[in-house]
Amino acid sequence: MSKSAEIICVGTELLLGDIVDTNSQHLSRGLAEIGINLFHRETVGDNHDRLVCVLKRAISENDIVITSGGLGATCDDITKEGVAEAMGLKLVLHEPSLERIKEHYRRRDAVMTENNVKQAYLPEGAIVFDNDYGTAPITAVQKDGKTVIMLPGVPRELVPMFDEKIKPWLKEQYSDAIIVSRNLRLYGIGEAAAEDLLRDLMDSYQNPTIAPYAKTGEVLLRLTAKGQSEKECNALIDSLFEKVEERVGQYIYGIDVGSLEEAMSRVCREKGLTVSFAESCTGGMCAKRVIDLPGASKVIGMSVVTYHGSAKQKLLGVKSETIEKYGLISHECAKEMAVGLLSLSEADIAVSVTGVAGPDTDEGKAIGTVYIGVASKRGVRSSFINLARGKREREYIRTLAANAAINEARLEALLLNQ
Amino acid sequence: MSKSAEIICVGTELLLGDIVDTNSQHLSRGLAEIGINLFHRETVGDNHDRLVCVLKRAISENDIVITSGGLGATCDDITKEGVAEAMGLKLVLHEPSLERIKEHYRRRDAVMTENNVKQAYLPEGAIVFDNDYGTAPITAVQKDGKTVIMLPGVPRELVPMFDEKIKPWLKEQYSDAIIVSRNLRLYGIGEAAAEDLLRDLMDSYQNPTIAPYAKTGEVLLRLTAKGQSEKECNALIDSLFEKVEERVGQYIYGIDVGSLEEAMSRVCREKGLTVSFAESCTGGMCAKRVIDLPGASKVIGMSVVTYHGSAKQKLLGVKSETIEKYGLISHECAKEMAVGLLSLSEADIAVSVTGVAGPDTDEGKAIGTVYIGVASKRGVRSSFINLARGKREREYIRTLAANAAINEARLEALLLNQ
Repeated sequence: MSKSAEIICVGTELLLGDIVDTNSQHLSRGLAEIGINLFHRETVGDNHDRLVCVLKRAISENDIVITSGGLGATCDDITKEGVAEAMGLKLVLHEPSLERIKEHYRRRDAVMTENNVKQAYLPEGAIVFDNDYGTAPITAVQKDGKTVIMLPGVPRELVPMFDEKIKPWLKEQYSDAIIVSRNLRLYGIGEAAAEDLLRDLMDSYQNPTIAPYAKTGEVLLRLTAKGQSEKECNALIDSLFEKVEERVGQYIYGIDVGSLEEAMSRVCREKGLTVSFAESCTGGMCAKRVIDLPGASKVIGMSVVTYHGSAKQKLLGVKSETIEKYGLISHECAKEMAVGLLSLSEADIAVSVTGVAGPDTDEGKAIGTVYIGVASKRGVRSSFINLARGKREREYIRTLAANAAINEARLEALLLNQ
Repeated sequence: MSKSAEIICVGTELLLGDIVDTNSQHLSRGLAEIGINLFHRETVGDNHDRLVCVLKRAISENDIVITSGGLGATCDDITKEGVAEAMGLKLVLHEPSLERIKEHYRRRDAVMTENNVKQAYLPEGAIVFDNDYGTAPITAVQKDGKTVIMLPGVPRELVPMFDEKIKPWLKEQYSDAIIVSRNLRLYGIGEAAAEDLLRDLMDSYQNPTIAPYAKTGEVLLRLTAKGQSEKECNALIDSLFEKVEERVGQYIYGIDVGSLEEAMSRVCREKGLTVSFAESCTGGMCAKRVIDLPGASKVIGMSVVTYHGSAKQKLLGVKSETIEKYGLISHECAKEMAVGLLSLSEADIAVSVTGVAGPDTDEGKAIGTVYIGVASKRGVRSSFINLARGKREREYIRTLAANAAINEARLEALLLNQ
């Protein structure tokens, strides 16, 4: 039987929106990886009664409760007191923890205040995990078959302590299965359309499962299997993957890959190809996204942002007649930009983007009108995409246009044999 | 009497840790700004029974419940059904919403599936807010003095819809005082140092309050006043602002401005100046950030990413001797890049960035070593920044380098009189 857990984040600063809670995601993912079910996450402020109330409910409904925050030395740090009350336990001084805290301050030549002694009081019988990253003792308290684990709220302490100590401990104690996921990245199809094609598989498969997630301009499809070994899980996923590939294979651009630019960069590196972009409405986004990845210098050497028409002419050699006849936002301009860039950059693949991101229309073209040009030794081509939707937000249109440009570079890299 | 609210995020992908929940922070901050108390936040998966259970408890304990997520067209989108059941209401077809969804697909030349019709079924009597950013109808359902507001989970829709429609609506309905904030943006000082300079003001002032927030490479200082009128609030803020300005005025680069690039663009537009960047380690980030802003074409016409040394030579005319003698990562190279760019781009201000973002060192220079060059008709100068700190993450270093470059452009624009 899988065990169930609940995460409780403690801190008024969270409820005021002063900080974004990244701990929950980290803990959630970690629990999923060791096959512990998570049905609820909760955030409460630094209020004793409300905390105790939430803790009591969580403990009654779950096998494991993990708290984050409220373990500091100040008076609004109330988690231990809350847990002790909710579980009917006393707080007692834990000498080794007190020694550790004293040592921490000694090493830093810092003054330890009376408040810090408070940190060494723990619920009786608590299992203490040495906190290698801070002063707050990290504990697991067990009673009547229930376990409450208290972690500090600072991600710099919580993340490594959970990964290095708590997760392995939980796995040993509770995990009866392992979970393996495979992430398929789809481009060129929406979430609803993908679901239409996969509906019966989604309904009929329980293990492995298949779940689609909408990302900006693309879809993530996750196949997840639960089993006794990685091999067993992978075999389960393989059988489902075959069926999924039959339905949506043409849209899959990568498996367990982070993004279009990562997929593109992989192909380029494998084939020893370089890419360059000439960006108008995307204004540096394509270059930025490729250069975000470590090792980008193997893939991109030069890229240009030609926002004004004059820059397109001067840098890329787009002809005045082309602009007069077809406009800057046209197949013809996109193609001339790509050809000009191929020679300027000496890259293997030159991709251009010209379009209207808004907020104003341009040349009478609707916001969301985008042309992509591609040039390589294979020749030159261009494509048109219509991104006019919703409020036609500038940022959104530019992101989708950059997706399309990076995808074109990826396709060209696949077609080029070097 | 202040009203109380609870936020419920719906989505198994949250509980699996697939995404980090930024919506909660945004909603929490917004509620705090209009004086609505938030005692709990909760996250549940795509499970009807558990959702209904959480909704019932939240509705019974609060005046307002705000949900995020689960409004899409797929069958794991269950929020409306859950809210209808928890409140004892039926779901009925809302014709205007159906029309809006149809129109959305028509405009995109996309196929609307049967699934999409589901989105137009709403709890009876629901107040519908036109969603300008997507297809999911956004609704407020009221019964027995309780209000449930359903927002989509995609931040791109939730954030603007909450800010533009839901927050003003809640404020009108429930808020008994008005709250005015003034946001000061500081560059060149850290959060701890700013706090040190402002500590006594932070402790002694209750209304208005002053709160510092650390942003990447900069500090946001928010002065907030509560009162009966905007005039009253502004007078309160003015008196505090004077004192704050005395202490940290030299670091303030903008008031109620979104970012360094926005402050820079404002100065440029006011003075009719254009900017161009030659980016190496920042790889298009500077151009992207400036072009992220509407109206960018008045400020930037051309920008280049010269990632490889050869691109710096070919496009910007950096001399081989300079590279041999000083290296690509040097004051001399940064200056030659800026001078070459000034002539290539014909912009009023040319700014270059060359540095080591990692993960590998380069030319024996440490990761985090960055040089910025600035050229204009005033002449040419360069500066060195050392970003080697903490974990020296690539993304972090590049963001800080782009901050510095954009700030240099801003300073140059202030100095240039056109």
